Amino acid sequence: MSEREVALIIGGGPGISASCARLFSREGMVVAVAARNPDKPVLEALEAGHGVHRYPCDAAEPEAVARLFEQVCSDLGRPRLVVHNIDGRMADIFRKGIIEADPTLVRQVLLNSSFSAFLVGQQAARAMLENEPDANGVRGTILFTNASAALKGYPRSGAFAMASHGKSGLAQSMARELGPEGIHVAHVPIDAAIGWTQEDGSRAHRLAGTTKDDNMADPDRIADVYLQLHRQHRSTWAYEVVLRPWLENW
Amino acid sequence: MSEREVALIIGGGPGISASCARLFSREGMVVAVAARNPDKPVLEALEAGHGVHRYPCDAAEPEAVARLFEQVCSDLGRPRLVVHNIDGRMADIFRKGIIEADPTLVRQVLLNSSFSAFLVGQQAARAMLENEPDANGVRGTILFTNASAALKGYPRSGAFAMASHGKSGLAQSMARELGPEGIHVAHVPIDAAIGWTQEDGSRAHRLAGTTKDDNMADPDRIADVYLQLHRQHRSTWAYEVVLRPWLENW
Amino acid sequence: MSEREVALIIGGGPGISASCARLFSREGMVVAVAARNPDKPVLEALEAGHGVHRYPCDAAEPEAVARLFEQVCSDLGRPRLVVHNIDGRMADIFRKGIIEADPTLVRQVLLNSSFSAFLVGQQAARAMLENEPDANGVRGTILFTNASAALKGYPRSGAFAMASHGKSGLAQSMARELGPEGIHVAHVPIDAAIGWTQEDGSRAHRLAGTTKDDNMADPDRIADVYLQLHRQHRSTWAYEVVLRPWLENW
Amino acid sequence: MSEREVALIIGGGPGISASCARLFSREGMVVAVAARNPDKPVLEALEAGHGVHRYPCDAAEPEAVARLFEQVCSDLGRPRLVVHNIDGRMADIFRKGIIEADPTLVRQVLLNSSFSAFLVGQQAARAMLENEPDANGVRGTILFTNASAALKGYPRSGAFAMASHGKSGLAQSMARELGPEGIHVAHVPIDAAIGWTQEDGSRAHRLAGTTKDDNMADPDRIADVYLQLHRQHRSTWAYEVVLRPWLENW
Repeated sequence: MSEREVALIIGGGPGISASCARLFSREGMVVAVAARNPDKPVLEALEAGHGVHRYPCDAAEPEAVARLFEQVCSDLGRPRLVVHNIDGRMADIFRKGIIEADPTLVRQVLLNSSFSAFLVGQQAARAMLENEPDANGVRGTILFTNASAALKGYPRSGAFAMASHGKSGLAQSMARELGPEGIHVAHVPIDAAIGWTQEDGSRAHRLAGTTKDDNMADPDRIADVYLQLHRQHRSTWAYEVVLRPWLENW
Repeated sequence: MSEREVALIIGGGPGISASCARLFSREGMVVAVAARNPDKPVLEALEAGHGVHRYPCDAAEPEAVARLFEQVCSDLGRPRLVVHNIDGRMADIFRKGIIEADPTLVRQVLLNSSFSAFLVGQQAARAMLENEPDANGVRGTILFTNASAALKGYPRSGAFAMASHGKSGLAQSMARELGPEGIHVAHVPIDAAIGWTQEDGSRAHRLAGTTKDDNMADPDRIADVYLQLHRQHRSTWAYEVVLRPWLENW
Repeated sequence: MSEREVALIIGGGPGISASCARLFSREGMVVAVAARNPDKPVLEALEAGHGVHRYPCDAAEPEAVARLFEQVCSDLGRPRLVVHNIDGRMADIFRKGIIEADPTLVRQVLLNSSFSAFLVGQQAARAMLENEPDANGVRGTILFTNASAALKGYPRSGAFAMASHGKSGLAQSMARELGPEGIHVAHVPIDAAIGWTQEDGSRAHRLAGTTKDDNMADPDRIADVYLQLHRQHRSTWAYEVVLRPWLENW
Repeated sequence: MSEREVALIIGGGPGISASCARLFSREGMVVAVAARNPDKPVLEALEAGHGVHRYPCDAAEPEAVARLFEQVCSDLGRPRLVVHNIDGRMADIFRKGIIEADPTLVRQVLLNSSFSAFLVGQQAARAMLENEPDANGVRGTILFTNASAALKGYPRSGAFAMASHGKSGLAQSMARELGPEGIHVAHVPIDAAIGWTQEDGSRAHRLAGTTKDDNMADPDRIADVYLQLHRQHRSTWAYEVVLRPWLENW
């Protein structure tokens, strides 16, 4: 079992998750990424280039999340940093009006985002409460990525507003409950589209129709903030950090 | 089919739902109440005393909610006022710490509260968009009751904070989307325990351990506010009204 | 001295103040309006048509506000309803960028809006704490009108955002402090331009450049909400009610 | 004129201001501190130990603030980092009920805190708009320290709630206005008492009656966050960071 800190990232996209995995790895942590499909090229590249460990997990399933934490604890050790980076957005429901949204998909968005945040938060708390406090008195950090929809309920976005607000309420409750136990819970709504530089040098982004490079959050810079939050002294913890680009309209 | 306004209340407890049913009925509306068990004595008394129509409905089930609206529209006419009054709180999860909460129950809380609000809101919007605007230009009012947990994520209350925040995000999105269509969506967090006078004159309240009568919201007064919101002129709609007793600590 | 309730409105424009004066008067209250210039035609018309009492007062001056309350208490009796309806907006500073705003005017906006709210709130509290509780246990109601700038700091609006947020913070502190004393303090941000029908039937509004009638708050309807707040049962007080027209973008 | 970045700190106490001055100086910046009395021992020690430049300034006076910026620009160069660190709290008004507070002092608190933030923000913006963008496209950073009273209007704290909320509204407006110009405006409410280690090793703190060391924010750690904000990439700017100790009740 390693002396190095273990970081576990739930959600395996090419944006924030990949940026976090690379940064945490460069900072000397043992990094695991869990995704529904751990065999995506982006995750294979993280393994090849940064020694990242890949795990399969449907984070909306209680048993699957319990198994994931057991496996990671047994393979790598108890994590000191867990990032929940699933927003549950689905193309089929995006920008649908309230009467158009398919209830089955809405339910899935809610379970993939809010409920999976609960499951991951619960297992992370359970594991971290057994960690010895570090020199700073801290047992671990749990970070929840969120979206603009956590800050405001936009029209034609009811399902996503519900799921994002739900995740926000959970994070806030956990922060108040676990702070005095030495676990730093923080909530990071990214109030912008997220863009990143692809291998061919072109700019990729999540949302179709967005063209201004300037107005997208760079996931490498988001990862910097996550690391700062993990290293923040417990006398001055931030609970919520909303990140948005300089040109974003808010 | 009646010329009178139809009001549909989802959730059939002895507090806000019963107070609303009595008031709306006294104000000349045709009133329906839907509950998982419509044969509860409190609902039978509303039928006997106020002509309230009772319907069975598990509001977390898409089909059941669709059937409820079909039935009410066919029996009584399309509603102009819909109140979602389910908070999904469950004794088995109340004040449980994050690592103690049973995931199966947490999921149920989320579906009973947030997801049922979506299902009810969707069917209400669908029905109301077919209403002719009234003299005031309004097609209908959708009210979401909520709890303190919608305003703040309290410790040892993660599941409930998640479900209540989710409902809040949904309501806000619906208000922005449906306002320009002439549908008034409002969100009413009750930041207090709710107490009411029982038939024997004693004071009943929802939460064990609360003893101060003075510090509980009276559901008859909450119903007054719901009626004011329903009658509010569209030039000055309130979206959110937080109600709390004068002695409440906030 | 009258048995009728005394209402005192600070700020004497043709919008909310006039609407409140007319409504409170129709509801049987003795109504006083204080303005820097009490001889404006709109106020003379309120006296002629509704028996409204007019008082001169520069509400940013401690002595002037103290004298006003002394005079009103002595002439009409201690008020049970006080409305602070000054926003301090000044044409010369409106939509000015941060580096263009004249510090002397900014200071004046801050004193006219925030500081006058403190002075009025202080004198209102002092007078009401001597009122006997009414049947509902209430000694009085203090209402603070506010603007969109209390909800969000818009660009090119720094002085006004500062003054409006300041008034909001004061109101919230007073609500928490005075609620348990039986004084209902409420804060009413009007998130819209305010328009009203002039004597010639045309539509007047405060802000140049606004043309949509539909998208302005009607001050008569705002006055309705103020009366509801004054009459609200203390078991279910609302502290903040944001009012906006159905077509408003928020 | 130096090639080094110039940082100007307004407010010269032994807590955040001194911690910032030491850190910014260690990071290679030219540091100036302005205070009503620049001859306080804590400032003399900063000069002696860290080469900090001291300036006299009553930050509630327009002319004084204009002169300060002229002098600093001329002596040291245009600042790229300005910290407004005055909260205007005064012992004579602390925890006073609304009817006890002396209006003259309340006015002073408002001018010392909110209005001085405007004056400093205005001069800082004026200077920075003339800065060449750095490699990151940024012309400068303006940071406003604030207090718990900016987040919530506590009872018996009306004047302070007003002043703190006012400062918050100003900062938010400035952030929206100046972001697209490449100036990062951020607001940092410290939701806690602030404590620090004195030269004799004992723990000093601002508020009498606070005894738990664990529950006070360490100003050296606050300064770390200020530096992170100054260095934050413009694709992911945080506007507001609330800092509180792990044991703080919120």
